[in-house]
Amino acid sequence: MSGRFITLEGGEGAGKSSNMEWLAEQLRAAGKTVLLTREPGGTPLAESIREVLLAPSDEAMADDTELLLVFAARAQHLAEKIRPALARGEWVLCDRFVDATWAYQGAGRGLDQTSIAALEQLVVADSQPDMTILFDISVEQGMARAGKRAALDRIEQEDKAFFERIRDCYLQRADQQPARFRVLDASLSLDQVRAQLEPVIEEMLSWP
Amino acid sequence: MSGRFITLEGGEGAGKSSNMEWLAEQLRAAGKTVLLTREPGGTPLAESIREVLLAPSDEAMADDTELLLVFAARAQHLAEKIRPALARGEWVLCDRFVDATWAYQGAGRGLDQTSIAALEQLVVADSQPDMTILFDISVEQGMARAGKRAALDRIEQEDKAFFERIRDCYLQRADQQPARFRVLDASLSLDQVRAQLEPVIEEMLSWP
Repeated sequence: MSGRFITLEGGEGAGKSSNMEWLAEQLRAAGKTVLLTREPGGTPLAESIREVLLAPSDEAMADDTELLLVFAARAQHLAEKIRPALARGEWVLCDRFVDATWAYQGAGRGLDQTSIAALEQLVVADSQPDMTILFDISVEQGMARAGKRAALDRIEQEDKAFFERIRDCYLQRADQQPARFRVLDASLSLDQVRAQLEPVIEEMLSWP
Repeated sequence: MSGRFITLEGGEGAGKSSNMEWLAEQLRAAGKTVLLTREPGGTPLAESIREVLLAPSDEAMADDTELLLVFAARAQHLAEKIRPALARGEWVLCDRFVDATWAYQGAGRGLDQTSIAALEQLVVADSQPDMTILFDISVEQGMARAGKRAALDRIEQEDKAFFERIRDCYLQRADQQPARFRVLDASLSLDQVRAQLEPVIEEMLSWP
């Protein structure tokens, strides 16, 4: 018996985290065992890599260092948490996964796509998500929402053009892989976003 | 003007660190500007990756996580410390570099050599050492010396067969790349090891 792997993607302030718990409740109500997790992080060791990645520092982080740390955390997360849960037949909901690397490190920082593809093949291999839900929102609206929160971390301090490239990349990937992606308009109210999630959940629950 | 990149390699207790400072003194006496550094680590950020790598943990570290962290620290070290120093014309002496990855992660843990080669190409590229000094010592003697020190870290707790594979790998690489490697018998006394180092230093100082 093998579980299902669902990833939630989107820029800052898109509401992924707020909706993930609600999505989990709907799946649990339908009798599924659900595991909630996030990237970068998801295990104590992967979280300690996340801390290195996000801590503001006087020392500039080299682009390839950032990419390798992201995939190091992901390798640990897959080995210790995601793959074991899927093997137990659980539904894994993950806040950000490899699409975020293409968006943030690839489109955002302009890192070499050949390197990302090589690392994706090495680390993710055939553990790709069954479905990816993209919470799409304009950069202005997303930043306004995220700005309400506490101090910005190192990545959130990047400029607006960086986040525009991220959004474009997500939308382009969704367009290229329609079988895997479901795109939601995350600019709407929480109730309206949930209304868009309902048919997506029905679709998941109809999976054989 | 470009500097010189010298790496020191060897198993536990081989005396690399004790001899590195003395080697630096000889090069400084000959008028060279010398930078001493080590891997994994070498910059504050790379050292924080080293801490994640070496900290004993209840959570098993996946093999590919270990490999990616080693190369993440190396990418940062090269970008922020080694390449800038070489560009300033300095002599960089580094305690362990990419040969250690082949020995520890490749031969020791049996990680996929294709992955190591791909990461070496991505991260090290043409920043290979001008010379690598291998401090060779039997596993028994090395462990006896290392055992005198404080608590063993996670990697030092590995069993003896692991360290035999590491030594064999180092000797094999030295055999395959004689132009780059100089092999010292590190089982001898400190004075006798220094006597072996002297002609190696003369050779370095004769470089154009």
